[in-house]
Amino acid sequence: MAIKTVKEYIESLKDGRDVWFEGEKVKDVTTHRILRTACELGAMDYALAQDPNYQQLLVEHDEKGEPYHFCFKPMETVADLLRKREIVQLTARTCFGMVGGSKFTGIDGLNAITAMSRRMDRELGTSYTQRVEALRNDLKKNDAGLAVAVTDVKGDRSLRPAHQKQHKDYYVRIVDENKDGIVVRGAKVHISWATTVHEFIVIPTRAMQEDEKEFAVAFAVPANAKGLKFIMAQPEEEDEENDFDHPLGAHIYTDEALMVFDDVFIPKERVFLQGEWKYAGHFAYTFANYHRVSADAYKYTENEILVGAAALMAEYNGLEKVPHVQEKLAWLGWYAETTEALGRVACMDANQDKETGLVIPNAVFSNCAKYFFASNYHQALKHLIDIAGGIVATVPSARDFLSPEIGKYVDKYLSAKDGIPAEHRIRAIKLVRDLSSYFNQALTLHAEGSLAAQEMSIRTTSPWSRYKAAAKRVAHIDDGSIDPVYSKLPQFPSWTWRKK
Amino acid sequence: MAIKTVKEYIESLKDGRDVWFEGEKVKDVTTHRILRTACELGAMDYALAQDPNYQQLLVEHDEKGEPYHFCFKPMETVADLLRKREIVQLTARTCFGMVGGSKFTGIDGLNAITAMSRRMDRELGTSYTQRVEALRNDLKKNDAGLAVAVTDVKGDRSLRPAHQKQHKDYYVRIVDENKDGIVVRGAKVHISWATTVHEFIVIPTRAMQEDEKEFAVAFAVPANAKGLKFIMAQPEEEDEENDFDHPLGAHIYTDEALMVFDDVFIPKERVFLQGEWKYAGHFAYTFANYHRVSADAYKYTENEILVGAAALMAEYNGLEKVPHVQEKLAWLGWYAETTEALGRVACMDANQDKETGLVIPNAVFSNCAKYFFASNYHQALKHLIDIAGGIVATVPSARDFLSPEIGKYVDKYLSAKDGIPAEHRIRAIKLVRDLSSYFNQALTLHAEGSLAAQEMSIRTTSPWSRYKAAAKRVAHIDDGSIDPVYSKLPQFPSWTWRKK
Amino acid sequence: MAIKTVKEYIESLKDGRDVWFEGEKVKDVTTHRILRTACELGAMDYALAQDPNYQQLLVEHDEKGEPYHFCFKPMETVADLLRKREIVQLTARTCFGMVGGSKFTGIDGLNAITAMSRRMDRELGTSYTQRVEALRNDLKKNDAGLAVAVTDVKGDRSLRPAHQKQHKDYYVRIVDENKDGIVVRGAKVHISWATTVHEFIVIPTRAMQEDEKEFAVAFAVPANAKGLKFIMAQPEEEDEENDFDHPLGAHIYTDEALMVFDDVFIPKERVFLQGEWKYAGHFAYTFANYHRVSADAYKYTENEILVGAAALMAEYNGLEKVPHVQEKLAWLGWYAETTEALGRVACMDANQDKETGLVIPNAVFSNCAKYFFASNYHQALKHLIDIAGGIVATVPSARDFLSPEIGKYVDKYLSAKDGIPAEHRIRAIKLVRDLSSYFNQALTLHAEGSLAAQEMSIRTTSPWSRYKAAAKRVAHIDDGSIDPVYSKLPQFPSWTWRKK
Amino acid sequence: MAIKTVKEYIESLKDGRDVWFEGEKVKDVTTHRILRTACELGAMDYALAQDPNYQQLLVEHDEKGEPYHFCFKPMETVADLLRKREIVQLTARTCFGMVGGSKFTGIDGLNAITAMSRRMDRELGTSYTQRVEALRNDLKKNDAGLAVAVTDVKGDRSLRPAHQKQHKDYYVRIVDENKDGIVVRGAKVHISWATTVHEFIVIPTRAMQEDEKEFAVAFAVPANAKGLKFIMAQPEEEDEENDFDHPLGAHIYTDEALMVFDDVFIPKERVFLQGEWKYAGHFAYTFANYHRVSADAYKYTENEILVGAAALMAEYNGLEKVPHVQEKLAWLGWYAETTEALGRVACMDANQDKETGLVIPNAVFSNCAKYFFASNYHQALKHLIDIAGGIVATVPSARDFLSPEIGKYVDKYLSAKDGIPAEHRIRAIKLVRDLSSYFNQALTLHAEGSLAAQEMSIRTTSPWSRYKAAAKRVAHIDDGSIDPVYSKLPQFPSWTWRKK
Repeated sequence: MAIKTVKEYIESLKDGRDVWFEGEKVKDVTTHRILRTACELGAMDYALAQDPNYQQLLVEHDEKGEPYHFCFKPMETVADLLRKREIVQLTARTCFGMVGGSKFTGIDGLNAITAMSRRMDRELGTSYTQRVEALRNDLKKNDAGLAVAVTDVKGDRSLRPAHQKQHKDYYVRIVDENKDGIVVRGAKVHISWATTVHEFIVIPTRAMQEDEKEFAVAFAVPANAKGLKFIMAQPEEEDEENDFDHPLGAHIYTDEALMVFDDVFIPKERVFLQGEWKYAGHFAYTFANYHRVSADAYKYTENEILVGAAALMAEYNGLEKVPHVQEKLAWLGWYAETTEALGRVACMDANQDKETGLVIPNAVFSNCAKYFFASNYHQALKHLIDIAGGIVATVPSARDFLSPEIGKYVDKYLSAKDGIPAEHRIRAIKLVRDLSSYFNQALTLHAEGSLAAQEMSIRTTSPWSRYKAAAKRVAHIDDGSIDPVYSKLPQFPSWTWRKK
Repeated sequence: MAIKTVKEYIESLKDGRDVWFEGEKVKDVTTHRILRTACELGAMDYALAQDPNYQQLLVEHDEKGEPYHFCFKPMETVADLLRKREIVQLTARTCFGMVGGSKFTGIDGLNAITAMSRRMDRELGTSYTQRVEALRNDLKKNDAGLAVAVTDVKGDRSLRPAHQKQHKDYYVRIVDENKDGIVVRGAKVHISWATTVHEFIVIPTRAMQEDEKEFAVAFAVPANAKGLKFIMAQPEEEDEENDFDHPLGAHIYTDEALMVFDDVFIPKERVFLQGEWKYAGHFAYTFANYHRVSADAYKYTENEILVGAAALMAEYNGLEKVPHVQEKLAWLGWYAETTEALGRVACMDANQDKETGLVIPNAVFSNCAKYFFASNYHQALKHLIDIAGGIVATVPSARDFLSPEIGKYVDKYLSAKDGIPAEHRIRAIKLVRDLSSYFNQALTLHAEGSLAAQEMSIRTTSPWSRYKAAAKRVAHIDDGSIDPVYSKLPQFPSWTWRKK
Repeated sequence: MAIKTVKEYIESLKDGRDVWFEGEKVKDVTTHRILRTACELGAMDYALAQDPNYQQLLVEHDEKGEPYHFCFKPMETVADLLRKREIVQLTARTCFGMVGGSKFTGIDGLNAITAMSRRMDRELGTSYTQRVEALRNDLKKNDAGLAVAVTDVKGDRSLRPAHQKQHKDYYVRIVDENKDGIVVRGAKVHISWATTVHEFIVIPTRAMQEDEKEFAVAFAVPANAKGLKFIMAQPEEEDEENDFDHPLGAHIYTDEALMVFDDVFIPKERVFLQGEWKYAGHFAYTFANYHRVSADAYKYTENEILVGAAALMAEYNGLEKVPHVQEKLAWLGWYAETTEALGRVACMDANQDKETGLVIPNAVFSNCAKYFFASNYHQALKHLIDIAGGIVATVPSARDFLSPEIGKYVDKYLSAKDGIPAEHRIRAIKLVRDLSSYFNQALTLHAEGSLAAQEMSIRTTSPWSRYKAAAKRVAHIDDGSIDPVYSKLPQFPSWTWRKK
Repeated sequence: MAIKTVKEYIESLKDGRDVWFEGEKVKDVTTHRILRTACELGAMDYALAQDPNYQQLLVEHDEKGEPYHFCFKPMETVADLLRKREIVQLTARTCFGMVGGSKFTGIDGLNAITAMSRRMDRELGTSYTQRVEALRNDLKKNDAGLAVAVTDVKGDRSLRPAHQKQHKDYYVRIVDENKDGIVVRGAKVHISWATTVHEFIVIPTRAMQEDEKEFAVAFAVPANAKGLKFIMAQPEEEDEENDFDHPLGAHIYTDEALMVFDDVFIPKERVFLQGEWKYAGHFAYTFANYHRVSADAYKYTENEILVGAAALMAEYNGLEKVPHVQEKLAWLGWYAETTEALGRVACMDANQDKETGLVIPNAVFSNCAKYFFASNYHQALKHLIDIAGGIVATVPSARDFLSPEIGKYVDKYLSAKDGIPAEHRIRAIKLVRDLSSYFNQALTLHAEGSLAAQEMSIRTTSPWSRYKAAAKRVAHIDDGSIDPVYSKLPQFPSWTWRKK
C-alpha cells in the first residue's frame, strides 16, 4: 500500500499546482508536451520499486511489516550510504544517466533536516525532531515524491541578504507569523523536479547573520500550496518526439523551476527553522554534504555514457587503434573511474556522528569528488568532440536519413567502418551533440555548488595545521606549535654518524 | 557593375540548385525558414561592399577602372594579407562573430589553386595558370559567391582512399573522362555556405599515392551543376524567429552541406588537377595555410563576444569585484588577445614566395594560433559558464518574461545588480547558452584541421635540428652535425679563469 | 630475536658488497659521507619496530609466538592492506615524506612472487610456492632488509629484448644453467635501497615472447653475491652536513643503483621463474599492482609537506588572505586529499583472489591514484613556487644568515610578516627549493610506471564494453551485443504518453 | 675607445665593491670560484661587440663617429626594438640560453627613466631629461655594465610601504637630503648581475600614495658606492668545475644579490625621482613594459634548449617514433614557437609615443607572451621529464663513466639507441636535470612579474568595453553605451525576409 504504482503516481500529480511554461499556464503536467518528459523520469522511481528485480534493493519494511521506500530511512550506517548509492546509480543508468525524478534531491533534504533537528533540539531544547519524524511518516505513508528547494535568487551577489537594494525578497523570508504558522515570500531557483514531486523541503542557501533572522527559515510545503507558483525553465530541446536526432534531449527534461513564494502560509508543524540564524548555514552545509555523494553517484553513470559515446565514435570512425585516440580514451576512462572511486570512498570512509546517530559522508572526499569531475568536465567534452569529429556540427537530420529520395546518399556517404551501419554512426553522432550541450556544462559545474564553493569547502575542511606541521618538521622550524600526528613522531634520523 | 547589390545577389541564388533540408527538397533557398538565415549572412558581404564606409576597404579596381571585390586579387604582399584580415574581422564583427557567407572559404581556395597552378606549370609545363585566371575573371565579372569543398567523407579513417571496403567513392574521384572534361563521383562533407554561393572550388583533402591517381582531382563547379546535390546539416536551432531566446542560434546557420557528386561533368577548362597525384597533398596544405589565417582573424571576433558575455554576466550578477571572477576574466582577455596577436604575426611575418610571386602566411605561427585557440577553447567555455552561473541551465523562456500574468515575477526575481534591468541579464544568459553549444565546440576544434592535424603540422614545421643543436651545444655533445645558427656562434665562455 | 635493533642492522650492512660512488669503491656504506644518509632511512624501519608506540602496528607474531615484521606476512585481507598502508605512512611521515629504506619495495616484490608462485604451481604443477615460503622464512628469521629489482636498462626502447643491436644484455637474462642453479647477466636500473638491504627480489620488467625465454627469469639474490656490482646515482645534494640550506637534500638519498649482474650465480632454491615466458609479464604486473598502493600511501605524506610548505610561505609572506593564494592553496589541499582518497579506496575496494587466497588491490582505482598525482604534480609545483615567490631563486645561504658581519642585514630584510622570525621564513624557502628538484619530478612521474604506462593500464582495465553499452542504450543502437549491467535494465521510459 | 675589450672589462670590476658570498667577504669577484662564472657571462657582451661577425649588429656610432653599444640608444622605432631583440637572442644563444651579464636589465631601466624624464619634464617642468642624458653619455663613454634594481624586499605583502610593522625600511626610501643630494636606506632583492656591472639604475617597485613620498625615489648608483652591500644568492650548483654533470649549473650563475643600501649618498645629478609619488608606479610599469619584450626574446632561446633536450632524449632512447612522444614534442615545438611569435608581435605592433618620441612595445601582446610562457612552463617541464625517463633521477656521475674500473659497465648499460654513444645520452640526461631545477622554475614564473601581476596587467590593458559592446550587440542589449568599433557597424541582418 505504501509503495505507489506508476499509475497512482501519475494520477496524484494532477493536484492543481500552479505551473507556467513558456508564458502559458499548464493544465495538466502529465500530458503537457514537454513536462510529461519529466513525469517519465519521475515515474521510473515508482516503476523500479515495483520491479521484482529491484524491490529488495529499493523497498524497506517498518516494524509492522509495512513496505516503504528505503530512501525515507535515516542514514545510519556506511551500508545505508552504499545502498542509497546503488539505488541512485540503478535509477540513473535506467534513465539515460539522469537521476529519477521523484525522490533524488528531496531525500538529501530530509537527511539534512533530520540531522539539524536532532542537533538543534539537543543544543536549544526545541522539539523539531518530532516535526521531522511526523513529516517522515506522512511521506512514507504516501510514498511521496519529494524535492528540495535551496538556492535563493540572490539579487546582487556582492550584497548580503539584508542589504539588497531593489527589494527585500531576493532570499526567501518570513513576512508574517502567528500561532498557527508563518507566511513566506521570495523565490528559489534551479528547483529540479518541480512538477513531478508532491512535497518540497525548503532550507536556507547560506549562513545568516543576526540581522538576517527573517531569512533563517526552513520548512516543508506541498506542491499545490496556495501562493506557490512554478515558472519552468526553457527546455534545451523542443522536439521531444524525435529521439533519433535528440536521444538525450527528447527524454531529459528535469523541469527546473523558478519557484515563487507569493506569500505562502506554512503551518508550524512543517516549520523546521524559524529565526535561529546561527543554524541557517548548517542546513545548507548538511544538505550539501549528503547531496554531494548522491551527485557523485549519478555522475559516474553520466560519464559511462559520455565515455562510451567517445569509444563508439572511435570505433565507428575506424580510429580505435590510432594512438592519440587511445590516449584520449584512456584519459576518459580515468575520468570516469576516478569519479567512481572518489564517490565510493566518500561513503566507505564516512564518519559516525555520535550525537545524532547518523552517518555523515566524508566531507573532504566528497568535495574532492565533485571538484574532480566538475573541474575536468570540459576537458572530457573536448576529448569527446575531438574524437567524434567535425561531423558533430554538420550531420544531417534523421529525416534526411529516412528520406526515400536522398536517404541512400546519407547511408552511402556517412558510413565509415566496414560492418557498422551508417545509422549506428549517425545515432552515435547525435548522442555526442546532446552530451555536449550547455545544459550539461552548467549542470556539471554548478549543481551541488560552483567550483569556487568547492574550493572554499576544501579550504575549510583540509587539515592545514597538519600540513604545516609536516613542513615545519622537515624545515626544522620550531615555533612551539603542537600537531597530534607530527609532533609525536620519533626523531629522524634516529641513528646517524653525522657530527652533532 | 561588377559589385552586386544585395537584391541582385538574393535573386541570383534562385538558380535551380538541388538542395535538401530535413528530408525535403527546398524550393527557394532565399525564402526557406532556416536557409534564408544563411542568405542573410551571405548578403552581408554584398551590403558591406556597397556601404560607403567600407567600400574603400573592400573594393578594388582593375586596370580599366572596373571595380571588383578585393578578395579576388591574388595575395602578393603583407599588406594584402592584413587588408584581407581586416575585411574578415569587419564582416565577422558585423555578423555576430560569424564570417560572411559568400566569399570566406572560397577565396582561400582561389589562393590555393593560384599558387598551385603557377607551381605546376613551372614544374610540369602544364597551363593551369591560364585556367585559373580565366576562372578569376569570371568570378570578378559576376562578383560571385565562392566556397571551397575540401573534406571528403573518408569512410574508414584507418584505410587509404584506394583501400576502402564498402565502395570506392569515399573520396571524390574521376570516374570518366573525355576530350571535353571529366566526370566526378563522391561526396564532400562540412561544406559551409552551400546555398549562398554560386561556385565551388573543389580540391583534394590529403596527399595521394601513385595508385590513387583517380582521387587526385581539383576543379571548379557551379552550385546548380547537374548531378550535384546538397543535403543540409540539421540546424542547431529551429526557432529562428525568436532571437531573444536564441540570439546567436536564430541568426547563425552556416548551411553546412553534405555535397554529393552524383556523376557530375566538369569541363576541362575548370579542371586544375587531373591525376598529378604528387601535388594532391600540396593543394590541401596550401589552402589550409591561407585559410588558417582567415580563421584566426574571425576567431578573435568570436572571442570578443564570448569574453564580453562573461564580462557582462560578471557585472550583471554583481560579481565583477570578486577576485576569482576577475582572474577568470583576465584569463579570458588573455585568451582573446593572444589569439589576435598570433593571427596578426602570422600575417606580418609572412614569407614572400619568389617563384609564384605570392605571399605565404607564416605557417609555423598560423599553426600556433589555431592550436592555441582550439586547445584552450573548452577552458574558455568553462570560465564563461562558471561566471554566468547555474541560471544558464534553468532560465525561463522569453515568453515567460513577456507574459502579462507572470512576467512580473521573472522581472522581480531574475534581476540582480541594481540598475541593470532583468531583461538585460536574461538576454546575456541566453547569449551564454548559444555560445556554449556543441556547434561552436565542434567548429573550434575541427574547422581548419583537428588538434592532431595541428600537432602534425607543428611537428613538421618547427626547427627541430636547431633545437637539437641548441641542446647539444650546452651539453657538449659533438656528433659532427652542423647548424646554421648554433654552429657559428663564438665559444662560451670566451674568457675564463677555469683550469682547462 | 627476529626483530633487529638499529645497531644490529647497521652492523649487518658491512657484508663486503661491491658498491661504487662517483667513480670510487665504497669501503663501508654505513660511514660513507653520502651513503650513510640512506642508512639513516634504512635504520628508521628498525627503530620504529623497536618503538613501544608503534610495535603493535609493525610487529606480528608467528604461531610459536616469535615476533616478525608484519610486512613479511602475505596480504590476505583488506585489513592487511590498510595496516600496511598505515605502516608506510607512519614511516614516510617520520622520514620527511620518504619511505623507510629497508623494506619498502621488497615487500611488494615478495607479495608478487607469492601470488605468482601459487598461480604457476596450480597451472603448471611446479613447486615454486615452497621456494617462496622458504625465502620468506629466512627473511623473517633475519629480519632482513629487502628490495626489488625490476627495471631493465632496456637499450633501444623501440626494439624488443631479443632484437637489441649492440649486445644481448639490455635485459637481465640466463646465460648458463646447471643442476644447482643458473647464471644471470645484465643490469637493472633505478634500484632503490641498493646499499641498505640484504636481499633483492629480481623479476622481469615486461611481458616476454617465446623467443625471449632467456629473459623470463625471477630470483632472489643477496647484496653481497659474487659478480653483483652497484653503481650509485649521483646525489642531488653533496652538502649533506648542511640541513638548513638543504632540509630535504641533506637527508634524502634513496641510493638508487645501476645494479650490474656480471655473471652472477643463483642457486635454484632462489629461482622463481626460469623460462616460463608466458608468466613474465604477470610478475611485473602483479608487483606493480601491490606497489602502486604503497606508492599512493607515501605520496600523500610527501604532499602533506609540499602543501604545508605552500601554506607556510603564504603565511610568512603575509599573503594568506589574498584570494588567488587561497584558491591555489585550496587546489593544493584538493590535490593532497584526492591522492589520499584514491589510495585508500584502492585498498578498501580490493578484490579477494580465491585461487591464491590473497587480496588484490583494486587495479583500476590504484591506477587512477597514480595517474592523478603524477599528472598533476607539475601543477602542484607551479602553485608552490608561485606562492613562495622569486626569493626561491635568490635567497642567500644559511652561512650569510649566521654571519656575524652581515647576518643582521639578512635578518632585517628577509623578515616579512610581523611575528615570524626571518629564520623561519628562510628555512621554509629552503624547503621549497628542495621540494621542487628534478629528483622529485622524475620520481613522481616515473616511479611505479610512466604516464604512458598508466594510460595503457587504464585502457586495459576500464570497463569499455559497459561504457559502450551505456551509450548504445541511450542512442538506440541495437547491434545484438549484451552487457551484464545495461542489457537487463528495464525500459525507459516505462510509462509514457508519447505516440508509439 | 668606447667599446671595452674583455680584458678591460674584467679589470674594471676590481673596484672595491662590498660583496658577500656564503658568509664571507669576496676579495675579487673575477677570481672567486663561483662569482667568476657570472663574470664569464658579463664578458660575453663585450666579446660579441668586438667580434667582427656581430659588430655591425651591436655597435652604433654617434654623430662624431665614436662607436658605442647600440643598447644605449633610446628606442625610437620598431626597427630599434627588433634589433635589440636580435641582440638579446644572439647573446642568449651564445650563453646557453641565459642573457649576457653586463647590459641586459640595465638597458630597460635606462629606457624607463628616459621615457619618464621626458614625461615628467613636460608635465611638471622639471629637468630630469638633462640628468638622464648626462648619465647616458657617461655610460656610453665608459661602455659601462648596467643593471636595474627594482624589487624591494617588501616585508609583509599585505601591508603598504608606509604601514609596515617591524621597521620602515622594507622599501628603499629617502632618509635624508641636502642641496647636494639624498641619502637612501633599504634593500632591493633579486638584483641580477650585481657583481658584473658598474652602475645600477634604481627605481620604485610599485605605485605610491601621498603619505609614501619618501619611497618615491629613482636614481643611479655605482657598484662601489659607500654603504652599498651585496649579499649573493646561494648558487644552485657549487661544483662549477664539472660541466659534464652540470652543463648549465657550472656555467650559469646570474649573481642575484640582496642589495643593501646602508645609508647611501646619491648626488642630485643622479636622482630621477624625488618624492613625486604620482609617478612612482609609472617607473615600474614603463620598465616592465620594455623589459618584458627583452625577456620574451631570451626565453625563446631557453626554450630552444629545453625542446632540443627533449628531442635528443626521444632520439637517444629510441622513442622518436612513439606517437605519444611525438605529440609531446609537437606540444613543446608549439610552446617554443608561440613564445617567439608573441614576443615578435609585441615588437612589430609597437606604438609610437608622440610626446616622448619613443616607441613603446605593445603592452597587451607582451603581457600575453609572458603569461603564455610562464603559465605553461611546468607543462613543458613535465613533458621534458616524461620523455627523458626515470634515469633523470638515478643516473650515475660523470666520474663513474670516466672510471677505469667501472666506466665500461656504465658505457655498456646506459647506451640505448644503436649508433649513439652512451656518453651523448648521459650528457643529455645531465642537461635535463639542470633544466628542471628550482631556479628555472622560479625564474620563469617570477621574473618580470608573477602570474598574478600578469593577470592584473591583462585585466587593465584588455579592451573590456569593446568586448562588452560585442556581446551586447548580439544579445540586443541596448543600454545607451557607445563603442567606437561596434556601435558604428551596419545592422545585421541588412536584408531579411523575417517578419519585423
